[in-house]
Amino acid sequence: MKGIKIVTIGGGSSYTPELVEGFIKRYDELPVRELWLVDIPEGQKKQNIVGNLARRMVKKAGVPMEIHLTLDRREALKDADFVTTQIRVGLLDAREKDEKIPLKYNVIGQETNGPGGLFKALRTIPVILDITKDMAELCPNAWLINFANPAGMVTEAVLRYGKIKKVVGLCNVPVGMQMNIAKLLEVDSSRVRIDFAGLNHMVYGLNVYLDGNNVTNKVIDMITSENPSMTMKNIADFGWEKDFIKALGIIPCPYHRYYYKTRKMVEHEIEESKKDGVRAEVVKKIEKELFELYKDEKLDIKPPQLEKRGGAYYSDAACNLINSIYNDKKDIQPVNTRNNGAIASIDDDSAVEVSCVITMEGPRPITVGDLPVYVRGLVNSIKSFERAAVEAAVSGDYSKALLAMTINPLVPSDEVAKEILDEMLQAHKKYLPKFFKE
Amino acid sequence: MKGIKIVTIGGGSSYTPELVEGFIKRYDELPVRELWLVDIPEGQKKQNIVGNLARRMVKKAGVPMEIHLTLDRREALKDADFVTTQIRVGLLDAREKDEKIPLKYNVIGQETNGPGGLFKALRTIPVILDITKDMAELCPNAWLINFANPAGMVTEAVLRYGKIKKVVGLCNVPVGMQMNIAKLLEVDSSRVRIDFAGLNHMVYGLNVYLDGNNVTNKVIDMITSENPSMTMKNIADFGWEKDFIKALGIIPCPYHRYYYKTRKMVEHEIEESKKDGVRAEVVKKIEKELFELYKDEKLDIKPPQLEKRGGAYYSDAACNLINSIYNDKKDIQPVNTRNNGAIASIDDDSAVEVSCVITMEGPRPITVGDLPVYVRGLVNSIKSFERAAVEAAVSGDYSKALLAMTINPLVPSDEVAKEILDEMLQAHKKYLPKFFKE
Amino acid sequence: MKGIKIVTIGGGSSYTPELVEGFIKRYDELPVRELWLVDIPEGQKKQNIVGNLARRMVKKAGVPMEIHLTLDRREALKDADFVTTQIRVGLLDAREKDEKIPLKYNVIGQETNGPGGLFKALRTIPVILDITKDMAELCPNAWLINFANPAGMVTEAVLRYGKIKKVVGLCNVPVGMQMNIAKLLEVDSSRVRIDFAGLNHMVYGLNVYLDGNNVTNKVIDMITSENPSMTMKNIADFGWEKDFIKALGIIPCPYHRYYYKTRKMVEHEIEESKKDGVRAEVVKKIEKELFELYKDEKLDIKPPQLEKRGGAYYSDAACNLINSIYNDKKDIQPVNTRNNGAIASIDDDSAVEVSCVITMEGPRPITVGDLPVYVRGLVNSIKSFERAAVEAAVSGDYSKALLAMTINPLVPSDEVAKEILDEMLQAHKKYLPKFFKE
Amino acid sequence: MKGIKIVTIGGGSSYTPELVEGFIKRYDELPVRELWLVDIPEGQKKQNIVGNLARRMVKKAGVPMEIHLTLDRREALKDADFVTTQIRVGLLDAREKDEKIPLKYNVIGQETNGPGGLFKALRTIPVILDITKDMAELCPNAWLINFANPAGMVTEAVLRYGKIKKVVGLCNVPVGMQMNIAKLLEVDSSRVRIDFAGLNHMVYGLNVYLDGNNVTNKVIDMITSENPSMTMKNIADFGWEKDFIKALGIIPCPYHRYYYKTRKMVEHEIEESKKDGVRAEVVKKIEKELFELYKDEKLDIKPPQLEKRGGAYYSDAACNLINSIYNDKKDIQPVNTRNNGAIASIDDDSAVEVSCVITMEGPRPITVGDLPVYVRGLVNSIKSFERAAVEAAVSGDYSKALLAMTINPLVPSDEVAKEILDEMLQAHKKYLPKFFKE
Repeated sequence: MKGIKIVTIGGGSSYTPELVEGFIKRYDELPVRELWLVDIPEGQKKQNIVGNLARRMVKKAGVPMEIHLTLDRREALKDADFVTTQIRVGLLDAREKDEKIPLKYNVIGQETNGPGGLFKALRTIPVILDITKDMAELCPNAWLINFANPAGMVTEAVLRYGKIKKVVGLCNVPVGMQMNIAKLLEVDSSRVRIDFAGLNHMVYGLNVYLDGNNVTNKVIDMITSENPSMTMKNIADFGWEKDFIKALGIIPCPYHRYYYKTRKMVEHEIEESKKDGVRAEVVKKIEKELFELYKDEKLDIKPPQLEKRGGAYYSDAACNLINSIYNDKKDIQPVNTRNNGAIASIDDDSAVEVSCVITMEGPRPITVGDLPVYVRGLVNSIKSFERAAVEAAVSGDYSKALLAMTINPLVPSDEVAKEILDEMLQAHKKYLPKFFKE
Repeated sequence: MKGIKIVTIGGGSSYTPELVEGFIKRYDELPVRELWLVDIPEGQKKQNIVGNLARRMVKKAGVPMEIHLTLDRREALKDADFVTTQIRVGLLDAREKDEKIPLKYNVIGQETNGPGGLFKALRTIPVILDITKDMAELCPNAWLINFANPAGMVTEAVLRYGKIKKVVGLCNVPVGMQMNIAKLLEVDSSRVRIDFAGLNHMVYGLNVYLDGNNVTNKVIDMITSENPSMTMKNIADFGWEKDFIKALGIIPCPYHRYYYKTRKMVEHEIEESKKDGVRAEVVKKIEKELFELYKDEKLDIKPPQLEKRGGAYYSDAACNLINSIYNDKKDIQPVNTRNNGAIASIDDDSAVEVSCVITMEGPRPITVGDLPVYVRGLVNSIKSFERAAVEAAVSGDYSKALLAMTINPLVPSDEVAKEILDEMLQAHKKYLPKFFKE
Repeated sequence: MKGIKIVTIGGGSSYTPELVEGFIKRYDELPVRELWLVDIPEGQKKQNIVGNLARRMVKKAGVPMEIHLTLDRREALKDADFVTTQIRVGLLDAREKDEKIPLKYNVIGQETNGPGGLFKALRTIPVILDITKDMAELCPNAWLINFANPAGMVTEAVLRYGKIKKVVGLCNVPVGMQMNIAKLLEVDSSRVRIDFAGLNHMVYGLNVYLDGNNVTNKVIDMITSENPSMTMKNIADFGWEKDFIKALGIIPCPYHRYYYKTRKMVEHEIEESKKDGVRAEVVKKIEKELFELYKDEKLDIKPPQLEKRGGAYYSDAACNLINSIYNDKKDIQPVNTRNNGAIASIDDDSAVEVSCVITMEGPRPITVGDLPVYVRGLVNSIKSFERAAVEAAVSGDYSKALLAMTINPLVPSDEVAKEILDEMLQAHKKYLPKFFKE
Repeated sequence: MKGIKIVTIGGGSSYTPELVEGFIKRYDELPVRELWLVDIPEGQKKQNIVGNLARRMVKKAGVPMEIHLTLDRREALKDADFVTTQIRVGLLDAREKDEKIPLKYNVIGQETNGPGGLFKALRTIPVILDITKDMAELCPNAWLINFANPAGMVTEAVLRYGKIKKVVGLCNVPVGMQMNIAKLLEVDSSRVRIDFAGLNHMVYGLNVYLDGNNVTNKVIDMITSENPSMTMKNIADFGWEKDFIKALGIIPCPYHRYYYKTRKMVEHEIEESKKDGVRAEVVKKIEKELFELYKDEKLDIKPPQLEKRGGAYYSDAACNLINSIYNDKKDIQPVNTRNNGAIASIDDDSAVEVSCVITMEGPRPITVGDLPVYVRGLVNSIKSFERAAVEAAVSGDYSKALLAMTINPLVPSDEVAKEILDEMLQAHKKYLPKFFKE
């Protein structure tokens, strides 16, 4: 029996132990025989630390899973069944710039859908598209499971310009919302189902069901009257205006704070950055501590400290998805995939984040009809931005990049957009070959 | 021969002489026999001044047009052919509050699509819906030609809740764009045609034709390279970032500055308000001077000073529209009307501002297909806002009003939205009976 | 523990033993405690025979399922969990007329989507709408699982005019296609998945997957080269023109023969009707034999002869659906439900037959995008017909009925439509009170 | 001053004198200086006869219009302003086969949207696509005004595969409907406006206005109660079933008889063909007589006998269209053009026949919203057929041709489709090089 071959690009990431743990836990039904951790020379040191930890974890668990470490992506991709991508082009230094530079202009960096996210897209998309070229050649039937942010734009780019068709973009935001709402209702999260629809980091819970009964209004009421946090580790815990959420009638995701509370968020981030640095700086510290832990040769499980890292549920989401595809589980998971009519006001061939039934043939979106009219504008604003960003990433066209920056709802003016753009282009020059051709 | 009966509600407006001039000029093909200027008791003094000027103008022109002044709307509406509405509920004092209160929170008031516009909608829509009730009874075949702002939301409200179906919302923005572009091209404006599409004060020129040839790129190039003003009297003359407009590929309207240059505009308005007061205060002064002029019994033409008032082309647009309906002219005019599929990403039954061929049966929208993906977000954001605002105006529901305020792209946060909303509700209490029921 | 209460309207049907068998088999996970078989006085004799058999079956199986027989629908409906409808208004005599009268005009009766189906709809829809009224009052949370044909039009009618929202229309055609294709591929049917989309008795298999791999072209090739039957008991086994199916690129259902082979089918039916009578007459004979068997007090299982009846997989489909809703199985089943954007070229609020994931909240359609352009016409022709038929059934409007008859693709001319309509109206007068009001 | 250059391909047609007359009448506003009549060697004799008549007409009228006769299409196309195509590949002999062969199978040939129309499409589309290649090279700014049938499919083909974008398909059916309805209302046709929408020879009048008032119901009532002919020279004058048309609520075109009265039409055509031959044979006789007349050197006007030919209003429609484009008339004309959202249930990039405002930039469709649900099926059936036919014509793929033939609503069965197809392919072999490659 052959078993499954998984290739994790960016395998030296601090998240990897969670992924390894996920595969170990599911080994009985999801027999991963080979896990290839691929990284780049700059990441080799971390790759070794993580790889050794992974081997110790596998050994302790007693499962016959081989851990391969390589810098040769093409060698790894050969005959893979699933390829996961968790790359960070330019590492945390680049994220720091994504967050810091916009703040200088009193603009939130927002490393996924803001100006920071634009630059993360410009750096990441060309690399992912290259990976799809290799996949088309070396493992044409494999699924690409991308968690690299901005996951929405990366999925959009692969759908439009990638050399493979089997791609899913993954996000831990909906899982987190489900957990938070279950906690609020004081029930086990398995009893809660939410119809998710929107875009990556711009997703709404349209309906919430408890044991099959629609409890959306009750949940909205609880959110507004008790004002529970309903947020994530990396997003400030500001409550919503009660009457606003009541009239909205659906549940926003934590990232919606950036759009519905822009001013408060930018003020908060400036303050925080003065105190503890931007999120990248905080993460750097956490990462450093994590890798110190990982080095410990006695450690042979995922250390609990990893939870602090912010990517809670991420690897679990990935393992669940792979498991459901492999075993045709037909459970319902919210992922980033081709819209194909699920959400009426978004183009059929664009990426959306929507509840899908996960089958052997991949995710199949469940129809939404359309989003409530009151959120169509904001959702489409981010889609407009995503589309412009993808075009810029693929072409290296300065004016497209300026367009993307200007129409981003977090950016207040075209001339500010230009200033931020110009400074960021210079700062990330090394990772933007398409913009600095000779 | 019967001739045409026109009823102008808000007839004491300083704009009326332009309308009168328009009817006089067109008398040969558009024989207006009766012009009824309707106003409310608070406006009677102005109504008399304007009415007397109108009578002198008619006399001088030698056309058999009767000018009727009345405070009894229902008397006037009986058997009308066209009803024009140019009301300002709460007068310029209300506008002053619409502009001043948001500025206190560093937010642009924007009396058409911003927080100010929301309140103008809340005050105006119930009155217009009342007028449609009277029309349904007294002149069911008449056309309602509305220029009262926010013209987009008023049209949306009449389409959804009005008692008549024949409604057109009028705006001088597209005419102004056409004039400016003709000037830029150094040709007569009759040689220029523009495909307009979008929403009121959120309209784009998708294509520009000169003598039938598409010159859009040339015009964009001229806008960006020579950075001509392309604006209106009441909107600050800030040029666009060249590369941004180039990538956008279509021509924004002057009001787009509020959205694509928000920060600059708010800073500018704060500065201006300190110097000359907000626009309402400037307009009050102009109005006062105008009415002084109008009082002059020797004046029997539209005084040239009216041009400064900011509503250039407005009455011309109205006369043109009425003329084209009456004479089945089949010329192409951009108006606010039911979308009916003209713009794909907006609901069929919503109001849009789009180039229409004007026939005896009213405006018939020319298909656009869809707006470029890069502007769909912003346009839909305003439509989301408009829809929420209409619901709030019709229901008097506080939470709907807060929703509208929060999702407006000019408002930076839900808690700021609430503060502005609460202060404005108090300030306009008198004109918002639906929100202050006993 | 309460257990499930099921109400079967038309419970005296010869199909009922299959349903009973289905519930017995699934008792462990689907504990049906009460099964109410409701019928009308004319059906009481059969109801008793079937009811007694059901009781013997339950006893033999040793499950604590109570069988209730009643003529009082409202008594039965109280607090039901699921209501299944398998009524035949006018019994098989009416079906005989549905099939025979059109044949006199050389037109296929087709008791589901043809002229016969129109009359079945006119007789059935008012009764089903009445049932939904009772349900709204007596068991508002129950699901209505309808198998009464024409299942598409009945679902359309309930969606538009019913007093409840939880309705599913069921059909055995897709299940049969899956079985036939599995047989063709020589694999177990559980390894085959088909994306179904279209309308009731007008459904296509868009893609066929074997173990997750798309084998559509292979299956098309097998259909055309080996020309296997791929049909149902009640539909003549004529093969498809090879090149036609190849160019179509998707798998038609057995009922498509009526549309793509109209002439051959009508000739065949005329011939058959001379030999063995129309299908209703054949079924009458089978039914008679079945009830003779059912009377046998020693019989305590579903007799194998029932399979000949033509409704193979029907009750299995029903039990599966109920089981999946009750247990939130999230398996994929093709059912008739509100489109909600699943198929682009059909209205959102119309009924379609489409693969759905079945959850505790009911069926959730999986997006199709759109049907291939080559079948959009035919599918929409049936939808046009269904919509007209529903309007006729609800209003009793003669001209709507003539419209439905004329636009049916099986009816060759408006004057023929009128002749058939007039003769059938008279023949079914007793069951069409809306058309013969006093 | 340069004047206009018009190229008429198929210039030897008997219709040409009407076109010449049209240009002469409009010379003052539409100064056609050069009219090039292009034909193929087989048509040279007729071309000379027609060309000489044209010259006499021009001379008599005293307008400076040059008539050029040539067999060299490319010479003619150089710098043309408008190119009209009225070609008949295979001449009337081919049409005879288009009409006769299907009748052998009791199927209407219908040389535009039936099996005959399919073959006319297969012969004509490759030639028209070749013409667009020449145009792209020799007169890239010229408009292609096509009247060659099947005009809908030809337009669809040019929109999808042509080398130019400026194409309009023209039809005399809507003009005829307008004339007939005006006659019915006993008013001048200029007072009547009809909203046309649908496909070529499958067009409906959605609304009829008299002097701007909607009189649709009145017209429907008149059609049904007085049963006036409302047809064309070449279509049998059978009235509609009163209640059917009433429920339809819109006005069908004469060609709808083929679909709503199929049986009656096929019986009638078989009968007629036995008496006078098929329409092609009748036309041949008329043509022969016409050319005898044309030869008469004393004839210097369009002879009144031409009206009998069946193409009434055709050339008038063409001249009107050219005039409106040239002079930016902005009148409303129904033409075949890119849908672009005008009719919701048809693809944006497909050809539709719809009321357009005709500008200097070409026809601009007026939005329809959507067709009434009751006709969407039939209209989409023809669009399905047209799309398959275009694919077959462009590829020469036998299976696509069989698909087109089978899904045509006039063809009753796939095996009949195959028989007709095979016989017609052989009969037209000479003109179908794509199907008989070596």
